[in-house]
Amino acid sequence: MPQLTVALDMMGGDYGPPVTVPAAAQALSLLPHLKLILFGLEPELSAWLNRCKLLHHPRVSVCFTSQVVTNEQKPTHALRYGANSSMRKALDALASGEAAACVSAGNTGALMAMAIRVLNTVPGVDRPALITRLPQARGGYALLLDVGANISCDATTLARFGVMGEQAARHVLGISSPRISLLNVGAEASKGSDAIRQAGQLLAAIPNLNYTGFIEGDGLFAGRADVIVCDGFVGNVALKTSEGVARMLLGLGERRGLLWKMLRFWIKRRLSHLNPDQYNGASLIGLRGSVVKSHGSAGSPAFLNAILQAVAEIEHELPASIAHRFDTAPMDSHAR
Amino acid sequence: MPQLTVALDMMGGDYGPPVTVPAAAQALSLLPHLKLILFGLEPELSAWLNRCKLLHHPRVSVCFTSQVVTNEQKPTHALRYGANSSMRKALDALASGEAAACVSAGNTGALMAMAIRVLNTVPGVDRPALITRLPQARGGYALLLDVGANISCDATTLARFGVMGEQAARHVLGISSPRISLLNVGAEASKGSDAIRQAGQLLAAIPNLNYTGFIEGDGLFAGRADVIVCDGFVGNVALKTSEGVARMLLGLGERRGLLWKMLRFWIKRRLSHLNPDQYNGASLIGLRGSVVKSHGSAGSPAFLNAILQAVAEIEHELPASIAHRFDTAPMDSHAR
Repeated sequence: MPQLTVALDMMGGDYGPPVTVPAAAQALSLLPHLKLILFGLEPELSAWLNRCKLLHHPRVSVCFTSQVVTNEQKPTHALRYGANSSMRKALDALASGEAAACVSAGNTGALMAMAIRVLNTVPGVDRPALITRLPQARGGYALLLDVGANISCDATTLARFGVMGEQAARHVLGISSPRISLLNVGAEASKGSDAIRQAGQLLAAIPNLNYTGFIEGDGLFAGRADVIVCDGFVGNVALKTSEGVARMLLGLGERRGLLWKMLRFWIKRRLSHLNPDQYNGASLIGLRGSVVKSHGSAGSPAFLNAILQAVAEIEHELPASIAHRFDTAPMDSHAR
Repeated sequence: MPQLTVALDMMGGDYGPPVTVPAAAQALSLLPHLKLILFGLEPELSAWLNRCKLLHHPRVSVCFTSQVVTNEQKPTHALRYGANSSMRKALDALASGEAAACVSAGNTGALMAMAIRVLNTVPGVDRPALITRLPQARGGYALLLDVGANISCDATTLARFGVMGEQAARHVLGISSPRISLLNVGAEASKGSDAIRQAGQLLAAIPNLNYTGFIEGDGLFAGRADVIVCDGFVGNVALKTSEGVARMLLGLGERRGLLWKMLRFWIKRRLSHLNPDQYNGASLIGLRGSVVKSHGSAGSPAFLNAILQAVAEIEHELPASIAHRFDTAPMDSHAR
């Protein structure tokens, strides 16, 4: 098996090295063909590398940085002053070809801005999108994008997300002709904002794209679509609302007894992909490289999932396939 | 107990009289002080009134109309050509004082447009909002608005929703100083759209209003806020997404056996207020009258709930209290 190299921002998220280093160690032991380049602040990172016996690991190279991007930082500020941050350096390694994918649990806005600056988008794509999986009632998954990278989107951007999502569904879900839909407040053509109605017309006009129309929030889990497109604000609220319902159900209080235990176990399993502690890793797609955004509150198992997802994306060659799709069927003609 | 009169649009929703007439009959038998004015098309409505023995009921007056507003109709079209529709006539009865509240399961956009035209908003309110209850993890409810009446909202409108929601929480939930929050993609002040950030500043500047900042989607059910404000697109998606997760969990397939039965029963109860077949009735607030929008897919029990909610709103005198709040603490000074 050919070696794969992933660059990790070890400082991102709510915890940093205490979470990211054990996850890195586990990934290395799971995947013998995986190489890691780790970026972070000297004292804290090296202490944890030492504790997890990664300081002199043959498949690990460490690059100490002098800065960290905080969650409070504005993307513009991180862009201007974060050149030596662990997040930026990890993206640089991806851009230079040292690494084939990058994982960070840091500030989404900053990651998005830096990734555009450092990697650039594929030709024909103006904005990358953050995409994630949603479990479906009868099993399997649908893809939802954007879940938070773009607060507001015009019709053309939404339509491009549809095309990017189509490629992701082909390569990640293995669906040859994925059903693409737009998230709206009603199924009727007259419903929703101008941008969404126009995006529907753009998607319907794209040859060989299986656009199936509008879908409402209660359709996100109903198995009626393989790709669901919306702007980042709506997608983020929808995803986190699902997590909220999941948590409400898991909050069975301190009920004891076998039935409650079984119930909690069953719901946990059923909701595992809505539970950020278990499902994890949304991908920034539309870039010239694979960037995986781990949940900020991710624990070690969740950060490990994000690393495994990055490896899978390298193997799926998603960036190349998206570039190819836009190269062969440019959208701008439809966008005007 | 003083008599209360409610006007019912009998033709709205996916089913019409087969659902609305039995619900009306049940409401009359539950509430001896309730009077109903029923609006609908002659043949269908009278057939069902006959079947449910309401044709000559002492507390029922029937008004046959010549038109119905369909779900596909655009609000502007309904406004211009729907003067003799059951929806419009029911609102007219509210405006003339014949009825103290109005219930319809019809086209939300049309109901909103007609209600503004016929009833007008209270002074200081430019747009009515559709408000509903959300169950909270540790019991009790929060109020979410707008859930679909206004696709997009500027900062001032969002701030006004906060003030209207405060009054609703006082009168409907009985909370003296409700915690008001804005739904956003992050808790940090830098997150979200300009409109939401500005709305946060407006709400923080309102005297005697308990504004507690931004809340994310996973906080909708966490008991951290009593009133959650967002635009109608986001609120509609959030509400329907919750319903979708609920349905996914209720879709336990055809599993048999006592455990699964208990499980299904327990989840059904836990999720009853996310299940449109059981919870029902969102209110249009900010108008000079009580208008309750029943879920379009509502069955008889759900439509009955909407009628009971209308009765409760008459007793709470919500429109008057909202008018009083805007009269004593006008918002426009903050809005500029």
